Amino acid sequence: MSDESSIPTRVYPADLLRDFSRRVFTHFDVPDEDASLAADVLARSDLRGIDSHGVARLRTYYDMLEHGRINPRPRIRVVRESASTATVDGDNGLGLVVGPKANRIALDKSEDAGTGWVSVCNTNHYGIAGYYVLEALARGQIGWSMTNTTSLVAPLWGAERMLGTNPIAIGFPGRDEPDIVIDMATCAVAYGKVEIAKRRQEPIPDGWAIDAAGSETHDPDAMIEGGALLPLGSRREQGGHKGYCLALMVDVLCCVLSGANWGPFAPPFALRQTIPSRSVGKGIGHFFGAMRIDAFIDPDEFRAQIDDYVRTLRATRPAPGTNGPLVPGDPEREAEGVREASGIPLVLPVVEDLRAISKAAQIPFD
Amino acid sequence: MSDESSIPTRVYPADLLRDFSRRVFTHFDVPDEDASLAADVLARSDLRGIDSHGVARLRTYYDMLEHGRINPRPRIRVVRESASTATVDGDNGLGLVVGPKANRIALDKSEDAGTGWVSVCNTNHYGIAGYYVLEALARGQIGWSMTNTTSLVAPLWGAERMLGTNPIAIGFPGRDEPDIVIDMATCAVAYGKVEIAKRRQEPIPDGWAIDAAGSETHDPDAMIEGGALLPLGSRREQGGHKGYCLALMVDVLCCVLSGANWGPFAPPFALRQTIPSRSVGKGIGHFFGAMRIDAFIDPDEFRAQIDDYVRTLRATRPAPGTNGPLVPGDPEREAEGVREASGIPLVLPVVEDLRAISKAAQIPFD
Repeated sequence: MSDESSIPTRVYPADLLRDFSRRVFTHFDVPDEDASLAADVLARSDLRGIDSHGVARLRTYYDMLEHGRINPRPRIRVVRESASTATVDGDNGLGLVVGPKANRIALDKSEDAGTGWVSVCNTNHYGIAGYYVLEALARGQIGWSMTNTTSLVAPLWGAERMLGTNPIAIGFPGRDEPDIVIDMATCAVAYGKVEIAKRRQEPIPDGWAIDAAGSETHDPDAMIEGGALLPLGSRREQGGHKGYCLALMVDVLCCVLSGANWGPFAPPFALRQTIPSRSVGKGIGHFFGAMRIDAFIDPDEFRAQIDDYVRTLRATRPAPGTNGPLVPGDPEREAEGVREASGIPLVLPVVEDLRAISKAAQIPFD
Repeated sequence: MSDESSIPTRVYPADLLRDFSRRVFTHFDVPDEDASLAADVLARSDLRGIDSHGVARLRTYYDMLEHGRINPRPRIRVVRESASTATVDGDNGLGLVVGPKANRIALDKSEDAGTGWVSVCNTNHYGIAGYYVLEALARGQIGWSMTNTTSLVAPLWGAERMLGTNPIAIGFPGRDEPDIVIDMATCAVAYGKVEIAKRRQEPIPDGWAIDAAGSETHDPDAMIEGGALLPLGSRREQGGHKGYCLALMVDVLCCVLSGANWGPFAPPFALRQTIPSRSVGKGIGHFFGAMRIDAFIDPDEFRAQIDDYVRTLRATRPAPGTNGPLVPGDPEREAEGVREASGIPLVLPVVEDLRAISKAAQIPFD
């Protein structure tokens, strides 16, 4: 959910936003089926309360398509494969199209080989990592999803941006209890939270960021202007080397394994950011995994145990001042219930962006 | 390396310790080949400077075998499999034997199917997670290794021990540069560091632990006596929910997927700790993955890119007061070089343990 619940918003039905996104993509000659797919990924993010990755990003996709930085009609190819693996070249297509198609290859491989693992190069921003896991869960499989992103994070003991926020998502299906859905960046905090602190003119908490000299800072501007985010764990004493290791792991699986640009060489997903002077591969990279549960254990038994696990977690004695642990996926599922019924609240700058797109592309919005 | 470099130690050649461990295992009727394997896992830990997981643990393995809590001659079985997967029942054998054998199944599956994934139940403490990754690297593959452990960690917003320290290890081979070897627990800090603080009568840092009431504590005794470790990230604001998610992910892959005891139901690896009153499966669980690099990309290209990545990380501008980022695996590899040449320093309590075993089992030590 938004961190800025006090900020004025306008509420739109999810279907209206999905349809608008779809028409924006087709405006740039994205094939109908691909445009629907891409719009669905964005809508799913808005429904699940991850406002930063839904139609709030449509403006950037628009800009990238408008300036020819993304290929609207990619020829997505499997360039190497084995029984349980594939490497996919996304032909510089929308990550919102390349991602779902590559993920399906992982799910299809898994049907035959028990598991499927797909590393993807020459792709772009793919939306929320969790989307791909939900697709796997819909097919009764365990799904994994990772991507690299533009560098924003310093390795522990580094003074500069060398790694992306490189998320990991994984999902496990329950039976009567909801599925467990993990979707987490490998840095301490999302960049968007630093931007919110800046707008509010508030200091940022311990352990979030360093300034351009590499010293920890509480000034959001010092992070934004040449500083960096800290990895999960933040400092050596609290395990900051572990968050750094996780970001590196995601980067190698997504990029080195596929032939994409890793680390500081990831191309930015924004027109205004400079493209790194060196390229070590093609585009950015994703990594998808799919595991057929019956390749390991009776699926009914697995789901019953997940139910037991979820109930056990919910019965944990709560820490003081809390209601006890959440089960991963709880907040997003609850948001989805609310927003399916009552619509997506958009902050006014996002509404203005969509109106500007509407005017420029001659697509009705509101 | 040890955190207690000022503490007096005695130095032993790695081969002497390996041979002593091997004879201790055979004393309990562990077959020769299995005893050598188990001793090798312990020796590798000592060589790599992970003192907590080497012969320092031999006393516990001894106790568990002596009391019939571990089966010295397990019939390790594949209970379910597909082209790229297997589920292994370790028949309550030594984790130091079940682990390496299950890991080989993953590596063998990978030769045929491109990847191999093995979930293991009915097993015990398997030593360092990194050992299994090194085995994969020796075969030119990417290796993954995870295990659950006795519960010690609170989920974020929980006031009690519900999860193990559940490590994740993964390794990527380089060409001229050393391999990248990640081996990390998913909690903020190792339990051993709390014990060290207790012995030194020093407070523990922020973000490590909670007391029995669930409040953050700086008192090592308060953690040890009914408190819990915090997950990586420690608090909500710094991403403590993410460390909790990772520990849960490891637990499901190791235990729910194999039929082992997850979460608070993991049996303890120590005689003095009480066995949980409820059992939800068999023993503890491990999870191994193996990926053939040529199932994704030309291995020479992969290794050249890993070299480039390692050099790029080493060239990162250092944070003030540091020498810049380490590459994961650096400290352990450096320890291995030193200790291969000059031996393993053991603290005196460990020497006393080994002498007591020597006397009881009539196996010469020193």
